[in-house]
Amino acid sequence: MAKLVGNAIFGQSGGPTSVINASAAGVIITALKMDCIPKVYGAANGIKGILEEKFYDMTQEDMKELELLKTTPSSALGSVRYKLADPDKDPTDYNRLLEVFKKYDIRYFFYNGGNDSMDTCNKVSKFMQKAGYECRVIGVPKTIDNDLYATDHCPGYASAAKYVATSTMEVYHDARVYDTPLVCVIEVMGRNAGWLTAATALAAYKGAGPDLIYLPELTFDMDKFLADVKKAYDKNNGKVIIAVSEGIKDKDGKYISEYGSDLAKEKDSFGHAQLGGTAQVLASIIKKELKCKTRYIEFSLLQRCASHLASATDVEEAFTAGQKAVEFAVEGHTDHMVAYEREMKDGKYHCNYKLVNLNEVANTEKKIPREWINEEGTGLKQEFIDYVLPLIQGESCPPLEDSLPRFAKLKKVWATK
Amino acid sequence: MAKLVGNAIFGQSGGPTSVINASAAGVIITALKMDCIPKVYGAANGIKGILEEKFYDMTQEDMKELELLKTTPSSALGSVRYKLADPDKDPTDYNRLLEVFKKYDIRYFFYNGGNDSMDTCNKVSKFMQKAGYECRVIGVPKTIDNDLYATDHCPGYASAAKYVATSTMEVYHDARVYDTPLVCVIEVMGRNAGWLTAATALAAYKGAGPDLIYLPELTFDMDKFLADVKKAYDKNNGKVIIAVSEGIKDKDGKYISEYGSDLAKEKDSFGHAQLGGTAQVLASIIKKELKCKTRYIEFSLLQRCASHLASATDVEEAFTAGQKAVEFAVEGHTDHMVAYEREMKDGKYHCNYKLVNLNEVANTEKKIPREWINEEGTGLKQEFIDYVLPLIQGESCPPLEDSLPRFAKLKKVWATK
Repeated sequence: MAKLVGNAIFGQSGGPTSVINASAAGVIITALKMDCIPKVYGAANGIKGILEEKFYDMTQEDMKELELLKTTPSSALGSVRYKLADPDKDPTDYNRLLEVFKKYDIRYFFYNGGNDSMDTCNKVSKFMQKAGYECRVIGVPKTIDNDLYATDHCPGYASAAKYVATSTMEVYHDARVYDTPLVCVIEVMGRNAGWLTAATALAAYKGAGPDLIYLPELTFDMDKFLADVKKAYDKNNGKVIIAVSEGIKDKDGKYISEYGSDLAKEKDSFGHAQLGGTAQVLASIIKKELKCKTRYIEFSLLQRCASHLASATDVEEAFTAGQKAVEFAVEGHTDHMVAYEREMKDGKYHCNYKLVNLNEVANTEKKIPREWINEEGTGLKQEFIDYVLPLIQGESCPPLEDSLPRFAKLKKVWATK
Repeated sequence: MAKLVGNAIFGQSGGPTSVINASAAGVIITALKMDCIPKVYGAANGIKGILEEKFYDMTQEDMKELELLKTTPSSALGSVRYKLADPDKDPTDYNRLLEVFKKYDIRYFFYNGGNDSMDTCNKVSKFMQKAGYECRVIGVPKTIDNDLYATDHCPGYASAAKYVATSTMEVYHDARVYDTPLVCVIEVMGRNAGWLTAATALAAYKGAGPDLIYLPELTFDMDKFLADVKKAYDKNNGKVIIAVSEGIKDKDGKYISEYGSDLAKEKDSFGHAQLGGTAQVLASIIKKELKCKTRYIEFSLLQRCASHLASATDVEEAFTAGQKAVEFAVEGHTDHMVAYEREMKDGKYHCNYKLVNLNEVANTEKKIPREWINEEGTGLKQEFIDYVLPLIQGESCPPLEDSLPRFAKLKKVWATK
C-alpha cells in the first residue's frame, strides 16, 4: 500500500492514568520520526480541542521532555469527557471535525482512552469513511478499570493494580496495631467492572490483604454482607479489612454509596452516576450494626496517578501501544484499536500487539469471569492472581530532583492556524 | 560507671509510622549485642503488654527478619493508646510495672512514641527512681506530626512528608486534566501542629502543589477562606488545589470537621476529639458557595504507612535513634529521650544524636513558627522548605517479591513467665 502523506493528531480522553502519557510518548515520538507525517499535533483536551482548533505543535517540544512523559502521570495534553452525538441525528460536530482535518491536512487520527473514547474514535472513523476523506484512525486503549473488550488487559490497569495491592498491604499492617477491634473498609475505583478492586487480592495472596472483597460483578446484599463481616470479625478477633468497589449495587440496581447518603446525586455528561462514599457508607452501617470501631479509606485519585509506584511492564506496554498505533496506521491500517494479546512462553509472560475492530470494542465492557471469583463472592481465586501478577512486574518511577519527582514540562506551543 | 546488668524491654506506642519499626530494629538489634543485657523483650501493645505480662522473647527472632523491620511499616509489636494515671492519685499500674520489672529483672526500659508516650516514659522513670528500683529509662521519639519538643525533627515525619509531597504533586497533575473548573481539597493528618500539611508546600516548591495551605497553627476563618478560594479560582481559571490539616479550628475552637457534620463526636482515651472529614466538609461548603465542582482527598492511614516511599534519611535516623537509646542507657544514662540535632557542615545536612530530659519533652508540643508561614496564612516560606528538604532525601523501600513488598515476619514467641 502506498504511504499516506499527511499530518497526525493525537488526543487523550477520559479519566487519566499513571501511564496514559507513556502512550502519548509512544505516539508522538514515533509519529515525529515518520517521513510521511510532516506535522504532529497534540489536541488540547481531546476531541474538544480539535473541534475548537486548539492544538499544540508537538515538533516544538524537546525530546527529553517527551521521554519524561513515560513517567509523568495524568493527561499532559488535557483530557475531556465529551460525547459525540449520533451523526445521523446531529452531524454538526462531525462536519466541523472534517473541516478541521481538511484545513490542517490531518490524515492520521490517534485517540487514547477507554470505552467512551473508543466509541468516539469509531464514530469519527465511520464518518470520515462515509465522507470519502482518507484518514487513518487508530485507537489506543487506556483505563485503570481494565474493562475494554478484546484486549487481554488495558494500559494503566497494572500500575493502578500495583498501587492498590501495595497500599492495601501497608494499610493491613497499620490497621491492626492496637489490640482493640477495627473494621477497615477500603474503597477502590471501578464502576461496573471490579478488576481494580480485585487487585487487593494480591495483598491477600501475600498474607496481608482484605478478608472480604466485594465486586460490582455480583449483586451486593447488605444482610449477607453484615453476616460476612460478623463472621470475619469473630474469627479474627475484631480485625477485619474489607475492599469494595465504588460501583457495587444492590438487587434493585441502587448504588451502596446512595444508602443513607443524602448527598446530591449528580450525573456526569455520559449519564453515569457520580460515585463515591461507598466505603464511608458501609463503615457507618457496620459501626451501627456491629457496634465496633470502623475506618474507611478511599484511594481516590491517588490510585490512578501514582506514577512513583508504576509497573514497569505497564509503562513499557503503554509506550509500545502508542508506538504500534502509529506503525499500524502508516502501514495502512485504520478503523481499529491496538490491543494486547498475552502469550506464555515457557511459563514466561509476553505481550503481543494486535488490532481489533473499533466496532467490536466500542461500548462493550469486559468483566471478571464469575469462575475467577470464589463461591461466596468475597474473594478471588488463583486464576485471577495468575492473570494479574505478570502485569505488575517491574518498578517504574520518575527521575527525581531533590528526591521529588521530575515530571515532563511541555512547552505547549499552539499550532499556527 | 559500672555496667548495669539486667534485661531490657522495648515497647511501641501511639499511632504507627513508616519507620517506627526501624527504631525497633535499632533498639532490638543493638540490645541483643550487649553483654550486660541477657534478654531482650518486646512488649505486645506497649505499656499494656507489660502490665499484662504479654511480651515476646526477641532472642528467638531471625536476624534477617529483624533487619527487615527497617522497611516494614506500622508497629510490629502492636501499639497502644493507654494513659497512665497520676501515680499520686492511683499507683496501681506503677506498682504492677515494678512487680513485672522485678520478676523479669528488667533494668532497661525503652519506649517508642510521641508526646503521650514520652509522658508515660517520664512517669515510669520517676516512679522507678522513687521506688529505688534501678532501671534505665530512655524514650525513642516517633511521630508523623513532628510536634515533639527539643528535637530538630521526629522519626517518621520525613517519610510521611515525602509521601504527602509526592502524592500532592501527582494529584496536582490529575486534578487539572479537564478544561472545566475543579476545586480539590486535600486533607493531611495533624491535630495541633501543621508540619505534615506544610509538607505539601514541597509540591508547590516544585511547581505542582496547592494554591492554598491551612495549618492548625492559625485560627481558621471561613469567610476569609472562601474569599481566598474565590480569588485563586478566578486567577487560575477554576483550577484550585487546597491542602488542609485535619485539626484546623475556628476562633471558638470548633473543629472545621464538625461544621455541618452530624457525625457522632467521639473522644479517644486521651480526650482528644476524633477527627476526620475536614476536607469533605470544606469541599461541600465550597461547592455550595462557589457553585463549582469539588473533590476531597484524605491521605488517611496511607500517609503514615507508605514504606514504599520512605525517606532513606528518615529510616537511617530512626534506626540510629533506637541504637543510640540502647548505647546511651548502657553508658549509664536514664530519664531522657534521644533527640535529633541538625548540623549544617559546608551547607550539607548532618544529624547528631543527643539526650533531652523527659520532663522537658513530655506533653509539650512544637508548632511551626509563625514567621515560616506567609503573611496571608495560606502558604509556607522558604525557611520551611530549607528545614524539610534535607529530611526527605534518599529513597527507601522494602525488598520486593513478585514486585510486592516483603515485610518482616516475626515469630513472636511469648516470653516464658
